[in-house]
Amino acid sequence: MTQSAHFGDRLARAVATRESQVVLGLDPDPANLWPQAAGEAGTPSMAGPAVAARAVAAHCAALIDAAGPACVAAKPQLACFERLGSGGWLALEETVRHAHGAGLLVLLDAKRGDVPVTARAYGQALAGSTPTPWGEVQGLSGDAFTVNPLLGRDALDPLVEAGRAVGAGPFVLVRTSNPGAADLMDLELAAGGKLWERLARLVDELGEAGDSGLKDVGAVTGATEPEHLERMRELMPATPFLLPGVGAQGGDVRALAPAFAAGRASGLVTASRSIANAHAEHGGAPAEAARREAERLRELAWGLA
Amino acid sequence: MTQSAHFGDRLARAVATRESQVVLGLDPDPANLWPQAAGEAGTPSMAGPAVAARAVAAHCAALIDAAGPACVAAKPQLACFERLGSGGWLALEETVRHAHGAGLLVLLDAKRGDVPVTARAYGQALAGSTPTPWGEVQGLSGDAFTVNPLLGRDALDPLVEAGRAVGAGPFVLVRTSNPGAADLMDLELAAGGKLWERLARLVDELGEAGDSGLKDVGAVTGATEPEHLERMRELMPATPFLLPGVGAQGGDVRALAPAFAAGRASGLVTASRSIANAHAEHGGAPAEAARREAERLRELAWGLA
Repeated sequence: MTQSAHFGDRLARAVATRESQVVLGLDPDPANLWPQAAGEAGTPSMAGPAVAARAVAAHCAALIDAAGPACVAAKPQLACFERLGSGGWLALEETVRHAHGAGLLVLLDAKRGDVPVTARAYGQALAGSTPTPWGEVQGLSGDAFTVNPLLGRDALDPLVEAGRAVGAGPFVLVRTSNPGAADLMDLELAAGGKLWERLARLVDELGEAGDSGLKDVGAVTGATEPEHLERMRELMPATPFLLPGVGAQGGDVRALAPAFAAGRASGLVTASRSIANAHAEHGGAPAEAARREAERLRELAWGLA
Repeated sequence: MTQSAHFGDRLARAVATRESQVVLGLDPDPANLWPQAAGEAGTPSMAGPAVAARAVAAHCAALIDAAGPACVAAKPQLACFERLGSGGWLALEETVRHAHGAGLLVLLDAKRGDVPVTARAYGQALAGSTPTPWGEVQGLSGDAFTVNPLLGRDALDPLVEAGRAVGAGPFVLVRTSNPGAADLMDLELAAGGKLWERLARLVDELGEAGDSGLKDVGAVTGATEPEHLERMRELMPATPFLLPGVGAQGGDVRALAPAFAAGRASGLVTASRSIANAHAEHGGAPAEAARREAERLRELAWGLA
């Protein structure tokens, strides 16, 4: 029997298999890498962007090896790779392969959004491939990717289609966790409700439910505003939520329980610096501290659903 | 006398020197490159993403050589390079260098936007540089870049600061040219006005005027809705406007006159497919057709201001 390639089904299976809803954020800062990974890539006297990019890839691989077993997905932050140029993009490609090799889904934190013809190109880059006279060029092969909805429905459709064609899921920004998110996403509309509620309705419309009941279009739902979560679940009853803001950004994982109302796989808990920098807080070797912190989060979230 | 590194001043000088407000959009499709550029990169039997990326770089260089003299800036669409992986990013870096070598400003069409810590990383990637133990890694060195404001003021500030530090300018999406832009950007707010009018006020606040009178934060203002332009100019009296939608997207350059009310450099006219594919419409060799079409647009826009 062929397993469903529907993203919601793939996500539900992965969460059940790995018994984890934790998403490992990969936001590598070249000035703050794990010492061993940085040392393997080259000594500081070896100048050059390529060495910095190799160090970033080695750091991400070590972090995945340490914390990955407690996680269901890895979430590379594209900005942190792009700032290292073409070598950084190569490090990103290596990181995606390493995460896939470790059995993790890969959620590309790209926050892309553009007019339809360009949105199709982003879909090729993030989840699909590009036909060329020199053969098909495979993109990053993300299992999921974050998307900015400001340009409207026709700009989202090509990204939804690109994901659906390969069983990958877009996660659309509905309400982010930064204080400034209130400036626009919390604006009251003349027709009633806030802008983020309008975004939530749009996300609910875009998704199609699979056998698991979960839809194949997700939502980024800022965890620092837990009082919004019940309303979000009401507006998007079968949507997977990506909950950033846990750990370093100040969110509290216990406040997230309403997100799991549609099943364990309906709430993904992201943590990045709180895992990568756990040794600074709790002491010990970076890998061991990261492993412990990821496992602590995994147990905490699993116990809520 | 040192020339001002204020973006508005740099833009005003460039427009005056080159007598052009035309921005050459670079949206390379590997399946539709100019035959000569594609042939130089490798024969179709030589499979591989690297050849496709080299062909894209050669195509962009040929397009810049042909149409660049009639333009003030080149605008690479990042999605079209990202879909070719690390080789594509290398082609992007080469294209930026080639455009700079041809005396053009480079406006990176990236539409980035993220929470503050990530916005800083995007600023490093687009206009700044990243400190690492292996030396400072220079980013793409864009003179300008497009930005998505959905995440609010605190997410825009790091991008404005990154630009200001090097005399580069962010162009913030206010109203895009796709039909779906109406879904969200045209929503009426309870406090009065539309969402795009709120975005316009935010852009006006973010920018600081230089000696030329022009501000250092621009706005992307969809040219397919020319009736909005007067209102946009009212809300952003000294902001440079990036006017997409001319040519292939159906805009009419003569409807843009209100954009130039704050001086010639206050309205930049983007054209991409109408220049690159001019030979399909008007016949002739691709380079010659592109040169003619860019020059036609340049004269048309210059005559309006």
